[in-house]
Amino acid sequence: MKNYTTLTLVGLVIVLAVALVGVLMYAQNQTSPERATQPLVEIAPMEPDSAKWGLNFPNQYDSLMKTKTNNVDTTYGGSSAFSWLERDPRQKILFAGMPFSKDYNDDRGHINMLEDVRATGRLNLDDSDPKHTPGTCYSCKSSDNPGLWAEMGMEEFDKMSFNELTPHINNSLGCANCHEAGTMRLIVTNPALEEAFKAQGKDWKTFSRQEMRTVVCANCHVEYYFKGDGKYLTFPWENGTDVESMIKYYEEEGFKDWAYPDTDTPMLKAQHPEYEFFTQGSTHYNAGVSCADCHMPYTRDGAAKYSSHDVHSPLLNPEEACGQCHADTNYVVERVNIIQEQVASTKIATEDAIIDAVTAIKAAVANGKADAALLDEARKLHREAQFMWDIVSAENSTGFHNPEYALKTLAEATNRARQAQMLAAQSIGDTSLLATGSYYNVK
Amino acid sequence: MKNYTTLTLVGLVIVLAVALVGVLMYAQNQTSPERATQPLVEIAPMEPDSAKWGLNFPNQYDSLMKTKTNNVDTTYGGSSAFSWLERDPRQKILFAGMPFSKDYNDDRGHINMLEDVRATGRLNLDDSDPKHTPGTCYSCKSSDNPGLWAEMGMEEFDKMSFNELTPHINNSLGCANCHEAGTMRLIVTNPALEEAFKAQGKDWKTFSRQEMRTVVCANCHVEYYFKGDGKYLTFPWENGTDVESMIKYYEEEGFKDWAYPDTDTPMLKAQHPEYEFFTQGSTHYNAGVSCADCHMPYTRDGAAKYSSHDVHSPLLNPEEACGQCHADTNYVVERVNIIQEQVASTKIATEDAIIDAVTAIKAAVANGKADAALLDEARKLHREAQFMWDIVSAENSTGFHNPEYALKTLAEATNRARQAQMLAAQSIGDTSLLATGSYYNVK
Repeated sequence: MKNYTTLTLVGLVIVLAVALVGVLMYAQNQTSPERATQPLVEIAPMEPDSAKWGLNFPNQYDSLMKTKTNNVDTTYGGSSAFSWLERDPRQKILFAGMPFSKDYNDDRGHINMLEDVRATGRLNLDDSDPKHTPGTCYSCKSSDNPGLWAEMGMEEFDKMSFNELTPHINNSLGCANCHEAGTMRLIVTNPALEEAFKAQGKDWKTFSRQEMRTVVCANCHVEYYFKGDGKYLTFPWENGTDVESMIKYYEEEGFKDWAYPDTDTPMLKAQHPEYEFFTQGSTHYNAGVSCADCHMPYTRDGAAKYSSHDVHSPLLNPEEACGQCHADTNYVVERVNIIQEQVASTKIATEDAIIDAVTAIKAAVANGKADAALLDEARKLHREAQFMWDIVSAENSTGFHNPEYALKTLAEATNRARQAQMLAAQSIGDTSLLATGSYYNVK
Repeated sequence: MKNYTTLTLVGLVIVLAVALVGVLMYAQNQTSPERATQPLVEIAPMEPDSAKWGLNFPNQYDSLMKTKTNNVDTTYGGSSAFSWLERDPRQKILFAGMPFSKDYNDDRGHINMLEDVRATGRLNLDDSDPKHTPGTCYSCKSSDNPGLWAEMGMEEFDKMSFNELTPHINNSLGCANCHEAGTMRLIVTNPALEEAFKAQGKDWKTFSRQEMRTVVCANCHVEYYFKGDGKYLTFPWENGTDVESMIKYYEEEGFKDWAYPDTDTPMLKAQHPEYEFFTQGSTHYNAGVSCADCHMPYTRDGAAKYSSHDVHSPLLNPEEACGQCHADTNYVVERVNIIQEQVASTKIATEDAIIDAVTAIKAAVANGKADAALLDEARKLHREAQFMWDIVSAENSTGFHNPEYALKTLAEATNRARQAQMLAAQSIGDTSLLATGSYYNVK
């Protein structure tokens, strides 16, 4: 009898111990990283100074500050400010006639944004020039923006010149760009993103927290343009976020970023469309993985668990970034390398094809007697080929965020570029315009 | 004191139970599927009759027999004998002048091989015609082959005509094509595969069993050609198994499968290069996954575990095939669909580009005054574009075995096809050869 009692007691202890461990594990999982620390100070709504938020969230703040100096490169990208024009001089030709052909450095970490946008050679600070840099260029560069947008409205913000806004903007990207003070909820702060979702009949306030761990990145990491004379920040998403739908949107709007010199092609400059690219049926997005899962992996500081805000390429910390899901990170890094090599070499082939098209269209225009309809068709394909290429090229993953989409898009871009070249030759009936490798000949 | 004794006893029982479960689990994992059944009958070396092997291995045999009737299709492929020429009439043009333009049905299950090769409209059974079908065409069709190769040597086998070999060949593919009787070891039985490995300095006898679960498929699922007058079965692997290396090999050999009518392009027909395609750095191959892991998943019959020999698309049994590694098979099937859709549409764009090239080269040849060097360069690019396209098209996965490689290869094929078209136009200085969409115009 006594034996059974002992057995029952032992059993009870085991059950209780298991239950306790379970409760502890559950509690730990349910504690959102924002609540791991009790607030010490109250943060004003849209507070631009991240240092103040940092009193409550020192780990998040300290890791954000690391982006000031995390300037390490990967094979194809990274966080130093290397010059794309030096690394791949084809881009000087591809962007001829617009500021990216003069100065196009790779992006550094988030905390350098403000310094870098003010230092870029793409600025035109002569406000008497109608082509001066608009204030809209500050849209994604500062934690002062949410407050300024609330105060003056985005329309007024965008109408000011870059020069005029400068005195109002003192902080690089920070907490206020993605978080609601007090609740620390992830929020859309860029009015253009809110409007773009609305145009698609979506309300971001209904999104799950995991979805928001991708959507807050879309406050900036998107394709956009400056609409009309007021340079109103607009995302071209009305028809969808795939590349064809964005081209269709720009077509309907009759928009061009610039006219290509000596071909008069109405060109489009793609920005940094990470959000559209990643969410286009990529394997990681469809598996429910968010941007933050890989770029801001959970990290421990003693007992505290927090999302690292030292955002950079996961290739620089694959154990932390990929290791949360993938057991063999050596294998994963090898995969990324294989994919990026394939995308990088295919991208160069597309660039060569576009440069051949440019060379041919220039010659057709210079001829003076080109068939106008054929020449316009050539320009249309030149415009589309370059935008398709740029969606892959300006996107900061050398295709990894969505490898099949990258390669399919490049295949289409090359096909369009070659057809543009052929149309140019047809427009003046001159087969000498069909030479290939013009980049290598001119260089 | 008695309490402690009881506790110790309870502890001991738990430890023993855990140990026993561990030993049982270990034993189960270590039992290779071939050893699950004690042999009942002795199998002669290279026994062609699979039914005899089936006495010892009824599960494997029964599942192999299911390939007779597993004629279910997937979206892009499957196991019915649908006509590729009807599904995609572009292929009639792409294969013009060679037997695949007359009859090109999708492959059915393994047990139908012999029936299907004898029924195909591609055969030429008139042995008085120098272009009659050689015996080499039986190389991958029968379990009689290992015995015949051992008896007469592959050289003699390949010198016979299809007609002459017919009486010696009575069984479709079977056990003897991949297994050594007695040991059931996975082995290379096709002498051409052994020679291809040797040419690369590799000895398959040193490969692991897991590697052999891919390599035995390469007994047949490879790119090959019939070398010289003796129609000697040869794999073009000397320079490597990527598409550029195979093109280089054929170039060095001066080999062509046929001359394209009215363009005189020395064409290459890709066969079913699943092995080369999959092992070219694909995500699954690099992760150590074998062909058999997905196409012959482990299955249970009561207590016995065996590799299903009912080989077909894993899309038809994703729970068994993908579920061994992937928790969410709905997600996995969705991924495959997305990838195959992207590859299929890119493939059609490549086909249209090649048909435009063919149309242009034909016109240049018909002109009679084409620049010979330019025309030859156009033919070279036509040959390469079609072989690159065919490596993806003839490969039985609509790109899924290696999505990035498929899309990169198609991008290169399209670029080459467009350049071929441009060279043809240059060769006679006529821009009217630059029309696109000729497939739609001719159709």
